[in-house]
Amino acid sequence: MLRVAYPSTLSPELLRDFPSEIELIPVSEKLDHDLDVDVWIPDPYTMRAVRAWPHLRGVKLVISMLAGTEWIPPLVGPHVTVCNAHGAHNIATAEWTIAAIFAMLKYFPLYLDIQRSGIWKRRFEAGGCYAKITGDTRPIYPPVMLEELAGKTVLLVGYGAIGKEIERMLAPFRVELLRVARTARTAPMVYPVSELDILLPQAEVVVLIVPSTAESRWLIDAPQLALMQQGALLVNAARGPVVNTDALVEALRTGRVRAALDVTDPEPLPEDHPLWSCPNLLITPHIAASSPQFAANGVRIAAEELRRYINGEPLRNVVQAAI
Amino acid sequence: MLRVAYPSTLSPELLRDFPSEIELIPVSEKLDHDLDVDVWIPDPYTMRAVRAWPHLRGVKLVISMLAGTEWIPPLVGPHVTVCNAHGAHNIATAEWTIAAIFAMLKYFPLYLDIQRSGIWKRRFEAGGCYAKITGDTRPIYPPVMLEELAGKTVLLVGYGAIGKEIERMLAPFRVELLRVARTARTAPMVYPVSELDILLPQAEVVVLIVPSTAESRWLIDAPQLALMQQGALLVNAARGPVVNTDALVEALRTGRVRAALDVTDPEPLPEDHPLWSCPNLLITPHIAASSPQFAANGVRIAAEELRRYINGEPLRNVVQAAI
Repeated sequence: MLRVAYPSTLSPELLRDFPSEIELIPVSEKLDHDLDVDVWIPDPYTMRAVRAWPHLRGVKLVISMLAGTEWIPPLVGPHVTVCNAHGAHNIATAEWTIAAIFAMLKYFPLYLDIQRSGIWKRRFEAGGCYAKITGDTRPIYPPVMLEELAGKTVLLVGYGAIGKEIERMLAPFRVELLRVARTARTAPMVYPVSELDILLPQAEVVVLIVPSTAESRWLIDAPQLALMQQGALLVNAARGPVVNTDALVEALRTGRVRAALDVTDPEPLPEDHPLWSCPNLLITPHIAASSPQFAANGVRIAAEELRRYINGEPLRNVVQAAI
Repeated sequence: MLRVAYPSTLSPELLRDFPSEIELIPVSEKLDHDLDVDVWIPDPYTMRAVRAWPHLRGVKLVISMLAGTEWIPPLVGPHVTVCNAHGAHNIATAEWTIAAIFAMLKYFPLYLDIQRSGIWKRRFEAGGCYAKITGDTRPIYPPVMLEELAGKTVLLVGYGAIGKEIERMLAPFRVELLRVARTARTAPMVYPVSELDILLPQAEVVVLIVPSTAESRWLIDAPQLALMQQGALLVNAARGPVVNTDALVEALRTGRVRAALDVTDPEPLPEDHPLWSCPNLLITPHIAASSPQFAANGVRIAAEELRRYINGEPLRNVVQAAI
């Protein structure tokens, strides 16, 4: 019988999704003896998983409940097959992106600050804030100001499953959508990443949702930030290293751009990091993909992969095939 | 020639929308002498408009650039026709509603607080916050938590033009939508307001977008808040008096519900008001309808009404007909 190690903290009701012809072996945070297992579903806390690994013997297949698995192959070596939970985070991540765009265009960080101060009339600050950010210094009226997403141009950098989900969610908001990805396509038009510098000046909102690869490292660097419109919004729902952090800090401090980041480089962001105090910035600490639905999604995808493994069918989400 | 008084602060380029066969008379904040005019487009700042009114002679028609005109008939009396700018705020207000729902479901007030503190690891507070708010105390995994809008039930209280715009914007988010309004309808199903108490327990998100009338006063009172789900989100994009503020303060303090309010009762909210310090609450100071597009929208609608008035056609947005 296939022996499958899983995190002991998983809610028991979720385990019902697994095939019945396996032996489920809970791995607790306090595991202090070796276990013989065939398949390992690592704890989503990387630190706990890394601590458990030396106690696991005979692992032939690792199935992650997360989409990001960069840390697993170096840990387990090349003789183990590794699968990720492709798709488990798509809706949560796309929703975070919509939420982050709106929070910034509606100046919610400013209004939360006003709310904490308890002074209603501070709302008139919004007009000055708008003028300063966007460079639009025409008299505005009333000077109590939010921006509409309607009519803006959104540039999607990355057009995989989550990028498409973001596009689907943007449909009712009357935006013009531009798409750029590694592979150019038509219907819909997707520009090659080599065109990025030509597209950046056209967008008021730039959304990063590319995979973390050597090619995507510092895709947004000082020259790209300089090409963005005054006060344009950069949303990073991808990975921290896609942006050159030092260049972004500079562009935020000088008021060139605004940003919403769920991911940073380095991560976690140290307590004295300059990003924490940059203006026109919303940071969420790598939580966009997390939701009460996440564990259920991750387990469902892992269970389907297990079923395929048992039946000798091809696995769906292999990120490393065992050699 | 028709004499039309307008706020002197309006950007000159907007005035091009007005018909050419009128005399445009700017009214500045410092108006200190009487003016003979036929039509008055009041300053969107009520205080400035109220100050200007005693200097205006011969006004037969008032055209507001705003949707809310409750204060105009008592000021100008029954012998003047009053029109509002029906529709000028629809997109901005509907966008604010989507933004407010997402900001609360994604715990952005908590994450902004974490950002200000500069401590990345405080993100683990989110799990406890979720459990406390929703009453869902099952072990969650990972305890870094946002909620998905997908799968939730949204109750729209009010189904006029803005309500329909909100529905249109919610389309991609996989929510179940319930509608209630003064007049029951079918296709789509709109329940009569008498069914409100039956519908409230079914929704995780309740959006108020009813007009401010005697009937809608305190539509959400203590019994209605008690009928809402534990931790459900109340979004008020309508008018402050639709909610009994004392009852809401109590329901927020005890953690029964969450809320996002663009409008309050009283308004402005005094500096020592208990709402300012309630937990699980986002307040924006009556700014949802304001955007750089607002003045252009308001002027466009006022210009069309003027054109009809000049041509003797029926006016479109009469809220008070002169007697």
